[in-house]
Amino acid sequence: MTADLTSPTGATAGAAPGGWTDRPTTPEGWVERARQVATTLAADAVQRDRALAVPTAEVQLLKDSGLVTLLGPVEHGGAGQDWTTALRVIRAVSAGDGSIGQLLGYHLLWFWAVRLVGTPEQVAAVEEQATKEQWFFGGAVNPRDADLVITDEGDEIVFRGEKSFSTGGRVSDVTVLEGVLDGTDKHVFAIVPTQQPAIRFKGDWDSLGQRLTESGGVVIDGVRVPWEAAAGYVRTANGWEFQPRVYNTLNVPLIQIIFANIYLGIAEGALATAATYTREKTRPWPYTPDLKETATQEFYILETYGELRSKLWAAEALTERAATLIEAINAHADTVTPEERGEAAVLIAAAKQVAIDTGLEIGTRVYDVTGARATASSVGLDIFWRNIRTHSLHDPVAHKRAEVGRYALLGELPEPTWYT
Amino acid sequence: MTADLTSPTGATAGAAPGGWTDRPTTPEGWVERARQVATTLAADAVQRDRALAVPTAEVQLLKDSGLVTLLGPVEHGGAGQDWTTALRVIRAVSAGDGSIGQLLGYHLLWFWAVRLVGTPEQVAAVEEQATKEQWFFGGAVNPRDADLVITDEGDEIVFRGEKSFSTGGRVSDVTVLEGVLDGTDKHVFAIVPTQQPAIRFKGDWDSLGQRLTESGGVVIDGVRVPWEAAAGYVRTANGWEFQPRVYNTLNVPLIQIIFANIYLGIAEGALATAATYTREKTRPWPYTPDLKETATQEFYILETYGELRSKLWAAEALTERAATLIEAINAHADTVTPEERGEAAVLIAAAKQVAIDTGLEIGTRVYDVTGARATASSVGLDIFWRNIRTHSLHDPVAHKRAEVGRYALLGELPEPTWYT
Amino acid sequence: MTADLTSPTGATAGAAPGGWTDRPTTPEGWVERARQVATTLAADAVQRDRALAVPTAEVQLLKDSGLVTLLGPVEHGGAGQDWTTALRVIRAVSAGDGSIGQLLGYHLLWFWAVRLVGTPEQVAAVEEQATKEQWFFGGAVNPRDADLVITDEGDEIVFRGEKSFSTGGRVSDVTVLEGVLDGTDKHVFAIVPTQQPAIRFKGDWDSLGQRLTESGGVVIDGVRVPWEAAAGYVRTANGWEFQPRVYNTLNVPLIQIIFANIYLGIAEGALATAATYTREKTRPWPYTPDLKETATQEFYILETYGELRSKLWAAEALTERAATLIEAINAHADTVTPEERGEAAVLIAAAKQVAIDTGLEIGTRVYDVTGARATASSVGLDIFWRNIRTHSLHDPVAHKRAEVGRYALLGELPEPTWYT
Amino acid sequence: MTADLTSPTGATAGAAPGGWTDRPTTPEGWVERARQVATTLAADAVQRDRALAVPTAEVQLLKDSGLVTLLGPVEHGGAGQDWTTALRVIRAVSAGDGSIGQLLGYHLLWFWAVRLVGTPEQVAAVEEQATKEQWFFGGAVNPRDADLVITDEGDEIVFRGEKSFSTGGRVSDVTVLEGVLDGTDKHVFAIVPTQQPAIRFKGDWDSLGQRLTESGGVVIDGVRVPWEAAAGYVRTANGWEFQPRVYNTLNVPLIQIIFANIYLGIAEGALATAATYTREKTRPWPYTPDLKETATQEFYILETYGELRSKLWAAEALTERAATLIEAINAHADTVTPEERGEAAVLIAAAKQVAIDTGLEIGTRVYDVTGARATASSVGLDIFWRNIRTHSLHDPVAHKRAEVGRYALLGELPEPTWYT
Repeated sequence: MTADLTSPTGATAGAAPGGWTDRPTTPEGWVERARQVATTLAADAVQRDRALAVPTAEVQLLKDSGLVTLLGPVEHGGAGQDWTTALRVIRAVSAGDGSIGQLLGYHLLWFWAVRLVGTPEQVAAVEEQATKEQWFFGGAVNPRDADLVITDEGDEIVFRGEKSFSTGGRVSDVTVLEGVLDGTDKHVFAIVPTQQPAIRFKGDWDSLGQRLTESGGVVIDGVRVPWEAAAGYVRTANGWEFQPRVYNTLNVPLIQIIFANIYLGIAEGALATAATYTREKTRPWPYTPDLKETATQEFYILETYGELRSKLWAAEALTERAATLIEAINAHADTVTPEERGEAAVLIAAAKQVAIDTGLEIGTRVYDVTGARATASSVGLDIFWRNIRTHSLHDPVAHKRAEVGRYALLGELPEPTWYT
Repeated sequence: MTADLTSPTGATAGAAPGGWTDRPTTPEGWVERARQVATTLAADAVQRDRALAVPTAEVQLLKDSGLVTLLGPVEHGGAGQDWTTALRVIRAVSAGDGSIGQLLGYHLLWFWAVRLVGTPEQVAAVEEQATKEQWFFGGAVNPRDADLVITDEGDEIVFRGEKSFSTGGRVSDVTVLEGVLDGTDKHVFAIVPTQQPAIRFKGDWDSLGQRLTESGGVVIDGVRVPWEAAAGYVRTANGWEFQPRVYNTLNVPLIQIIFANIYLGIAEGALATAATYTREKTRPWPYTPDLKETATQEFYILETYGELRSKLWAAEALTERAATLIEAINAHADTVTPEERGEAAVLIAAAKQVAIDTGLEIGTRVYDVTGARATASSVGLDIFWRNIRTHSLHDPVAHKRAEVGRYALLGELPEPTWYT
Repeated sequence: MTADLTSPTGATAGAAPGGWTDRPTTPEGWVERARQVATTLAADAVQRDRALAVPTAEVQLLKDSGLVTLLGPVEHGGAGQDWTTALRVIRAVSAGDGSIGQLLGYHLLWFWAVRLVGTPEQVAAVEEQATKEQWFFGGAVNPRDADLVITDEGDEIVFRGEKSFSTGGRVSDVTVLEGVLDGTDKHVFAIVPTQQPAIRFKGDWDSLGQRLTESGGVVIDGVRVPWEAAAGYVRTANGWEFQPRVYNTLNVPLIQIIFANIYLGIAEGALATAATYTREKTRPWPYTPDLKETATQEFYILETYGELRSKLWAAEALTERAATLIEAINAHADTVTPEERGEAAVLIAAAKQVAIDTGLEIGTRVYDVTGARATASSVGLDIFWRNIRTHSLHDPVAHKRAEVGRYALLGELPEPTWYT
Repeated sequence: MTADLTSPTGATAGAAPGGWTDRPTTPEGWVERARQVATTLAADAVQRDRALAVPTAEVQLLKDSGLVTLLGPVEHGGAGQDWTTALRVIRAVSAGDGSIGQLLGYHLLWFWAVRLVGTPEQVAAVEEQATKEQWFFGGAVNPRDADLVITDEGDEIVFRGEKSFSTGGRVSDVTVLEGVLDGTDKHVFAIVPTQQPAIRFKGDWDSLGQRLTESGGVVIDGVRVPWEAAAGYVRTANGWEFQPRVYNTLNVPLIQIIFANIYLGIAEGALATAATYTREKTRPWPYTPDLKETATQEFYILETYGELRSKLWAAEALTERAATLIEAINAHADTVTPEERGEAAVLIAAAKQVAIDTGLEIGTRVYDVTGARATASSVGLDIFWRNIRTHSLHDPVAHKRAEVGRYALLGELPEPTWYT
């Protein structure tokens, strides 16, 4: 996580963005930019999903649009935006393509990870280089695989093992590794160049949804990292030690609110796609005394759109409210208390589950308002249900509910874990 | 609506507030004040509800607490708060007693009505007198009864007829009358003293819920109002004429978002009351392999609280978001466009239906997490379901859904009616 | 449980039924008779419920109609019907008045209890006397109160203690007592005359619903029962011993399927009452482009009735299917296996939870299709929700779901308990 | 529909069934046979679905198992079963492969179609030949395409036009054609050999689910049929005329109850497949205070299986009940009244919608109880949701609900149409 990482992208600061000749200057501008990206992505999202196409061009689009450096410092060419905007951008991109929205969301989290756990020097160095060189981040950090073991070799540490899921894998420039120092319970994060012989992606991600997230397994066979690049570790009299603070544990609330925004974005995409179909193709039902001239006059169709739209707005409003807690925490990272962190985690857990319920319902019910012919594979309206259904299983929603319940009933805040 | 209305309360500015010796100075302070009022109300809400007790003391409590003049100008002793705060206050009071929350909500709307339809002179005069004298407003404006007919007698107009519902009736100081000028389609609003021989309340409100809202019928038998007090009417060459603007029609979105906040408040009350019961009285289920020591460890209880809490937060977040549109409109009342008004109406319609669905679900499911003995009449946990179930039928939620659906599917904004 | 019990009713066989001069001879005839009883009960069910009226006349109606001896041997004047018919009768009566349906259901269970646990001699004696004298059974058997202690005094046993709930209490002729023999884990059931100084009802049942079931507490202060009347106990070399068989444990599945039928009946009552209201009083909504002439043409009203009707039919069909398992078991009571008993219990648990979900939904949603004025207390449409909501908490539906889940997932049958 | 149709299968009576050397003799035996077929089909259902494989071998399996002639007369080698059994068989096969269940269901309907509309002579001839030669039926009868026009050429009629959907198409031996006699409103059905130059299948069925049903479009370019084979037409003084009776219109209730059984079967398959996965592969959640050793102890997993199992049993019980009405009608086909037909149609409409709701819920929620890794494409658990979601759109469930609602609210029976 220091600046001496050889450029993994080969890019240089100020690389000409493809297609766009300027950069937005306002939060609204960046969200609008994300919508443009989404429109581009939506055009062939179903086809790419079917083909399980490696999203190389799509990651390039994210780079060209400036979204990859959305959180990067302005002085290094980044957009300098905050997480309020970042979450809206993730949501907007997900409306066009849930997979690419996820790739962007995870990237932004890992881009931010150095802020969560790094030293001030590491933060400065990583943000500068990642921004200037437009790094796209992947990550091998799935915590339920305790399979990455780290050996301490003095000045360096060496990662060896496997992770079942490594989102962003083959399309990333750098990969965030997470492992446990052998013989200890010390977790170490480090950013390493993706292209190196010691990292081998299995390319085995073939799932129901979020198919273009490059989330397959990875084999790590001797990735060497200098201790200086171990995020947050500093040399002490007792060797390299990590200095914990509450803010370290914000990664889970942050990734969870990213999830919520991915689901909301996908659900938005579903509603918008369905509405276009209903307006353009759905026929009124001829075998009823309550005959209508167009499908858009059918009471049940209007009522269903109204109900789904209302629920989705509610889920979004709660997610936006949760984002204000994240923003408030980011404003004083060094002094955030466990209570603040816990309350954000609870509200985010709540937002996530409402987003999931709403998204799954929308994913299924859009067919009721589009009709039988909308099941043609050429329409591809199932991509939304598949995408939400797949990712929403990341951790069991029942346990998330219980977590919120412990707070609502007992006032208990969740203990930070890899999922809370 | 002019200042020459003889004081209907007999009160004078600066009347000593019972119990409270000071007034809050911040929005948060006013919401906290509302919570105190709610706590007081909750203590015997069930008993008063059963007894169908006329809420004279409760209206006095609203006056003493300062909530009745929440929207009144500071220079006349009012709190000078905005609708963002007013809606939160209505919600907070409704958590303690849905009926009193409704009385307050309607009162605040009618207090505001002169702003919506009155002339600048009427606004100034009414707000001053209503604030100084702590008027509590009732209203005989149910639009589905077209039974109040107005006769033009030159300098005065005279209201005669009936209204089926007149919330606040017997406990109000002033009553807002709404009628149609005979032989025309001109609607006229006027504020009149409630205590007068020409107004007779039937006292016939006996309903499933919201029982203490004094919503029974009223007979109006010759209430005389000078033309100067006809809200918004000005003398022209062609006689007294009303000068319409879009802001006139904000009454319906405003009352509808008040409704949503009443439901949310009641649902909050339900959750809080149930949680206390579960913690203090509910027993774990003994006939299961998954035995727990306390009910608060039962997974289904935690999961249910988590789910209900999450949904209610979502409904509240959407309602808060809708309130920002109301606030934005209030900031430029003279220039509000039909689009702004329509978009607020749609978002409020969405918020209301989510609030209703959530509230009804909570009202029913709180029993699942409290248990059989919580059905004892002495517990009275049903008051929440009854209150929401009753008021949520004000206008059919299916048509509200269709209204949102027309916007979501077709981009159509609702035409202003008495219910949209 | 022997024949020497002094007549607690003072009635004699063949007592003239009030109103009805004949007895049905077919199962269908008995269900039709139950419907007539329901119609009579429905006429003032809401008023009696409000008044918390002791259902003396209603129990007499059950006697006069012949329903009290529905399961009694034909040779003694009973109807000789089976449980298939009994459950339908309970359902039909519950549609008119859920409380009276529950009283009848519990009565029929306790009438049958001697078959479940008694000796052949006890069965013959009790069924003869109970039928001839039209006993109405109450019961002090709530198993979560382990408060009735039995002392063995040689030839007699003596019950002392309390039960929190004793359905049928003051309106019963005989009471089924359940207690534990002091110093042992032997449960003993006995039928005793209700009218005796040693039994004192507290009259403290005042609950949200099922208000006329006389389910208050009872104090038992020295009720003496000869050992011969201890159900199922026979004198052995080691003293009085109970001879267990699987059929003993059928009481719980039987009461649980009675519950399901009570809920279904109440839900039927709700739908029928609402439909009459919608047809006769509900007005179409005037503020919509999709204007109708009558409320019965409103699409959402038709759709809602269709959805609720369909769900209720499904719940009923499952309950009827479960009843066939009960009937099959009754056909070979002496040889019923734990598997048969367990499978019936599982299917009944399933039926009960579907009945509860459906009933609660109907109880709430009938208002959506009747409208705001249907909340008038004079309409009393809330009685259905209140009745189902109250009784459905008898044991936690979440645990019933888990019980069915254990079977569906693991093939495990529930261990017999007092609730399974 | 006469016996002179040249054998389209080339098969002869008594052809040796592949794999099975005997035929069941009881209804239970046939359902068990269907389960065996389902097990075979399930083994590669996901792979065949992905490959969009023409189900030639699967139709042969249906023939070999004897299911194709399930309704055929015993004297000609058929199983002679009734519709009660046929519907259970369709359900059982659908549990293994929804597409093949649909193929079988449609086949059996078309096999039966001659009974619904044919003359006694046609019935005898078709049933004999179809049974002896194991015809597999396809159909080009989608009524919303009014595109098949019939020309009367004296002794023959000639079909020309297109149908968008023709289930069974390429794998059928015979095809049922439906068209309108040019210049009249007379509908004519006829059975014709599938293999003929005048019938061309487009092979364009590529949909979200039910992918192996060969439901693509068909071009009919001059299929000639003698008048004698026009189902139900007889020569009269006025030419060939159809003799209508109520039983003609039973095709729609019959196909709709077939649909319901397909959905129920698919849902059964989903539950069973998920349960196996949960037992074998799902891991308990480690980040909770309520830690379990196995996933099968997780309360929410047990509760979810219990809830889904209960709902599915209810849907099945209602469908079975509806089937008894079909059976009752079949018992007196010549004298069935419009009321009987209408009541069956309503109950079937109810059953279908409950089956759809339940099936879609199961299709989505099975993932909650299997977990994230169950989304792997190799698992293929989505096939159930896709299959139900696709076929359940056949006609709008909202209108089916309204249809049941008209009966529940107003007592109105649906007018026979192509969808009611």
